[in-house]
Order: sequence, then structure tokens, then C-alpha cells
Amino acid sequence: TKLSAVSGAMTGKGNYNHFMQKEIFEQPAVIGDTLHSFINPATRSIKLPDMPFNIGDATRLTIVACGTSFYAGLVAKHWIERYAGLGVDVDVASEFRYRCPPMPKGGIALFISQSGETADTLAALRYAKSKGQKILSIVNVPESTIARESDVVLQTYAGPEIGVASTKAFTTQLTVLACLAVTIGRENGSLSAKDEAGIVSALTELPKQVAEILHHDEEIRNLAINIADARDVLYLGRGLGYPIALEGALKLKEISYIHAEGYAAGEMKHGPIALIDPLVPIIVIAPSDDLFEKTVSNMQEAAARGGRVIFLSDAKGLETIGDMASATVEMPAVADFASPILYTIPVQMLAYHVAVHKGTDVDQPRNLAKSVTVE
Amino acid sequence: TKLSAVSGAMTGKGNYNHFMQKEIFEQPAVIGDTLHSFINPATRSIKLPDMPFNIGDATRLTIVACGTSFYAGLVAKHWIERYAGLGVDVDVASEFRYRCPPMPKGGIALFISQSGETADTLAALRYAKSKGQKILSIVNVPESTIARESDVVLQTYAGPEIGVASTKAFTTQLTVLACLAVTIGRENGSLSAKDEAGIVSALTELPKQVAEILHHDEEIRNLAINIADARDVLYLGRGLGYPIALEGALKLKEISYIHAEGYAAGEMKHGPIALIDPLVPIIVIAPSDDLFEKTVSNMQEAAARGGRVIFLSDAKGLETIGDMASATVEMPAVADFASPILYTIPVQMLAYHVAVHKGTDVDQPRNLAKSVTVE
Repeated sequence: TKLSAVSGAMTGKGNYNHFMQKEIFEQPAVIGDTLHSFINPATRSIKLPDMPFNIGDATRLTIVACGTSFYAGLVAKHWIERYAGLGVDVDVASEFRYRCPPMPKGGIALFISQSGETADTLAALRYAKSKGQKILSIVNVPESTIARESDVVLQTYAGPEIGVASTKAFTTQLTVLACLAVTIGRENGSLSAKDEAGIVSALTELPKQVAEILHHDEEIRNLAINIADARDVLYLGRGLGYPIALEGALKLKEISYIHAEGYAAGEMKHGPIALIDPLVPIIVIAPSDDLFEKTVSNMQEAAARGGRVIFLSDAKGLETIGDMASATVEMPAVADFASPILYTIPVQMLAYHVAVHKGTDVDQPRNLAKSVTVE
Repeated sequence: TKLSAVSGAMTGKGNYNHFMQKEIFEQPAVIGDTLHSFINPATRSIKLPDMPFNIGDATRLTIVACGTSFYAGLVAKHWIERYAGLGVDVDVASEFRYRCPPMPKGGIALFISQSGETADTLAALRYAKSKGQKILSIVNVPESTIARESDVVLQTYAGPEIGVASTKAFTTQLTVLACLAVTIGRENGSLSAKDEAGIVSALTELPKQVAEILHHDEEIRNLAINIADARDVLYLGRGLGYPIALEGALKLKEISYIHAEGYAAGEMKHGPIALIDPLVPIIVIAPSDDLFEKTVSNMQEAAARGGRVIFLSDAKGLETIGDMASATVEMPAVADFASPILYTIPVQMLAYHVAVHKGTDVDQPRNLAKSVTVE
């Protein structure tokens, strides 16, 4: 199953204008490849590689990463706390490694890095190991230093990622983290076989749903043209949507140089709402889940102050809000669990098209390197 | 000791142009008042109110708050993990309450709110209580709902805060949190009486050091005039300086409507460094502590890409960097532990003067309310 992505990379950009675009469009395939390597479709159950310890005995999980991988960790915290009842700490590696935090007895530490060579993440791994933690890692390069120094490596089958702004590495990290959350829940008795089968079904729908969103490329390109002149953009979400708001903002920053910022929607009125004026587009991540109403209420506050709201939701959600938003993107209906993976796709596409419209160097944005192997 | 601040508020703005300015200048007094209520200067030890449980037995501490109070929680996490060896979770209330996270057995939960009426924070308190946590709170209004529903209330003696953008409430919250960190460390055996005395000495220096910074008002006003035309400002810090970078950015956002953002300095090269061009001022919080060199290295990366760096450090730190920064603010030398309280003052002053120069309504910024009693 690794062949599709690798052979894709070998053919260069193919019919795409940029590696980033190609990598966005590879996501149905590489999410599928990653799922196939961990899911038994016959039993609708998940099988991770054998581990030299029982992950169900973990007393606590510490996740450490940088940049986009850190946001994948924030999603995992929600999943693992909710579905496995296990407390999770998440920190950025450059803070964690110098903070020298106390590490729990019987704890597991998880490090996420596309390249497996991120210097701060590697230093954090070595610190956690010195404090007796079992070491898990999620990497895209199985020969990497982080992989070599881990007790267990969970690989993303994203294939080579060339664009500096991470896309398919992020969604395949989320895919692996979803499988990890389910495994911890099953092993510690929080999740029944039936619950597991339900989540596995939701995950296996993803390649098709991601492909469906990719068909909205022209529509998202038109939205992008409308925000390309903005100096500032806010991204709002709650719960599983909050890290996706952060990731959407980071993508836009990285490749379009627009100052975008992600916020937990409920924090808006504690300060950032002062920024809102008619020039500031506000991208709202709002699947019709338990938090939908609260998110809509934050959206209304922003709209009432003149903000140009771009609202991402499913048919049911869009029906609820009527014409309150300036623009909408209709997403496929998706199980709560799987929503952060699906809602990542349109924010990647939006950033991509804004950057193309502005004429920046999409695959090699200024000041950035693909893999940060210095501190 | 409560009288000074209360009587201050009763006289209105006095000789100040805005309540915010007055409240910034009250900080030597109210930090002193708050310290006096918890510190025994003769024994150089800290005495919190009696608690109906032994705080030294806590297995974990969960801190929940919103906005500026949340940033106070981030500072406390560093202090408590480092000086008391106790694991700390910090979350924003609007996320925490709907996430329904697992809560540790024997855990203590701490809620921080100036008004004591913040709706999301109160809901989070009730959730934590239903999960068997002991409830601590830090409020400025002892008659508030959050105070009434807590097992133990630690009061900030800030006096009434009228400006919507919190200043003296934040630094007195930090003062109380410092005393709490020391108490936990002493009670669980992590901190010796000698260490405690050292920290108490550092804290008791603060009113004088804060007053010293306030004397730089004219100099900071001149810096502010130079950045008032910026559309975007970045604030960078590491360790205890990172939450102060976040707070500095929030202050500027709230009252000047400039899109400011705080970042962990080590995360810059994982994305936001793409934003930097000669139009973006970069405020660097850099006391000459263990992390100083790393922060300087991030500052150099920013400066190399054309960023206008404003560097806040002590004489020793400023000597090290020579003329690498576009502008500097010389801070008093300060013990590591106390640095976040001291470095808050210049970022408040900077935001204040930018807003005054821009002519915004400093005490009543658009779209914001003083106390957020709705969700």
C-alpha cells in the first residue's frame, strides 16, 4: 500500500501546479493507505504494531511536537481523553524540553514529527526517556532518528512530502492518532468492541468524504480570491474544531503571509473580538455536533460587529444558520470523531488558493525550511 | 492593607488620563498589598488561608480560566511544576467545560477570574466539583459566585479594576499564584525553607522593581509611537516569558486593535517566521536567564529577515546583544522566579501608549465587556 504515494512523488508534480496542490489531492489515497495498515476491515477493529508494554496500563500520555504536528497532538488529546478516559498533556517541544516537567510514573510519551528529525522534538524525546517514559513516535520517515530512538514507531503512509507547508502528513498523523486513541480505549476497557467498530466505520468513510470536498476546488478558489486582499484573518472553532482553526491559520500564514490566527471560539469575547471589523474575514469550523449552537452564537457576535463570516458546516448546519454568513462551504455529514480530519481539507485548499492568487512561492515560502533540524 | 487600592478607585482617575493608566501605576501598591496578606516578612515564609485539605497531598492540579487569567495559569504551571514537582493542566474554560475531561483522583482544581462571575469559568468549576475535585479559586471580588462555590478562596488585593483590559488584576493573580506554588512545594516537600525564603525575598523586591519600570514611561511612549502604525506585531518569549508574550499581544489587540500575536520563540520557525518583514515589529521578552541564549538566537533569525526587534532585557542581557535590536528597554535585574510579573509591566505600558497615540477608547475598547457573564 506504500507504493501509490511513493510512485506519485517519483513522477514529480504530474498535472498539478505545485507539490502542495498535488499533496492535498493525494489525501484520499494516503489516508486510505494509512488506515489499511492499521485496520482489519473484516472485523472492523484496529491492530497497531506489537508493543513491548501494555498501552492499556498507561497512567498518562504526554504528547510533544512542533508546528502542525503539535496541532495533531491537540486533536489527539480530545480523542484520547474522551474515548479512552486517559489524561493527556500536549506541549510544544521547544517549551517542553527546557521546562523539564515532572513525568508521571507509568507514563507514555508520544512524539510526532513528519521528518523524524525535528531537533527540539528529538531533545524532548531524550528527556522523556531519561525520566522513564515509554516512547512512542509517529513519523513519516521510518529510518529517522526519532523512529530509531523510540520503543514503538507508528508510521504515517503519506509518502514523501515536498511542499514546505505540511498537508498530507498532518491528516495521516491524525489518522494514526485516531487508531491509537481507539487502541488505548479498547486496551484499558473504556471502549467496547461495538464502539470501536463504529469509529472504524467512520474512519473508513474518510477517503471518500475527503475526495468529495476536493471536488469543491473551484468554489473554494472563488472564496479564496475574495479574502486574498485581507491583512488579517481569524479562524474559530470549538472542541475538535479548535485545533483545525489553529492549523487553518498556520497554513494561511505560512504560504500567503497573511496574518491569520486561530482561536477557541469561546475565547473571542475575552479579547480578540476587539479586532473585528468589516475587513477581517472569519473562518468558522462548525460541524453540526454538540457544540454547534455555541459556535453559531460566537459567529453571530462576530457577524454583528461587521465581520465577514465564511462558515464551514454540513447541510444540516448550513440550514440552521440561513443567511447569517457571508459565504459557506458545504461539507459532507461526518461522524463527530472523524470531523477534524475532514475539516482540515477545505482550510488547506483555502490557504493554497489564496497563496496562488497572491503569487507567493507556495512550495517554498519565504523564511521557512521543510524540516527544522536546528533548534 | 486593602485601603490603598479601594480609596484609589474612589477618587476616580485622579491625575491620570485613563483608568487603565491609573491601574498600571497602582501595581507597586497592589502587588505589595497582595504580598503582605500572604507573606510573613519576619520569617520570610508564606502563609495562605487555612484549607480543609492538605494541599501537599494533591496528585495533580487543574487550572481553568479565560483570557488574561488563562495566561496567569500558564505562568503558574511553570512555577508549580518546577518548584513543587506537581503536574499541572491548564485549559481555557470554554474548551474545558464541554470537553468533559477525565479528572484525577485526589486532584485539586483552581479557577481564576477577576470578577468571580465569568460564566464559562463558573461552569467549569461546577463540572470539576461534580468530579470530586477540591476547589480553589483566585478572584478579586470575594463576594462573587465563584468565590462562594469554592472550598478555598485566595483573594487578589487589586482593588476595583475599571479599565476593560486587565492589568493590576493580572499581576496580583500572578502574585497569589507565586505564593500558592511555594506553599504546594513546601507542603509536599519539594521546597526547603531556605528556597522559600529566597523566593519570598525575590517577591518582596517586586513593588520596588515595578516602580522602577514605571519611571521609563516616557521612553516606552516613544517606542509606542514608532509601532503605532504597524498592522501586525509579534511577541516572543520562552519559558516563563512565553505567557507574558501572549499577554502583551492580547493587551495590544484589545485596546489598539492591532493584530498582535504571542508565540513561543522556539515555534517561530515552524511557520510564523514567514510573516516577518520590515513592517512587523517583534517584541522579545528576554530576561538574562537559562533560556536567554536560545531566545537571542530566535531574535537574530527574525532580525535577519528584516523584523524590527524591540528587545526587553536587563543590563547584562542588553550588553550581550549589542546593537542587534532596533530598540531596547532596560529592565531591572530580577530573580528568574519573579521575572514574569516584572516583564508584564512594560508590555502593558506599550499597549497603553500605542492605543492613546491611535486615539482609541482605552478604557472601553470596542466590542469588549469588563466581565463576561454570558457564555
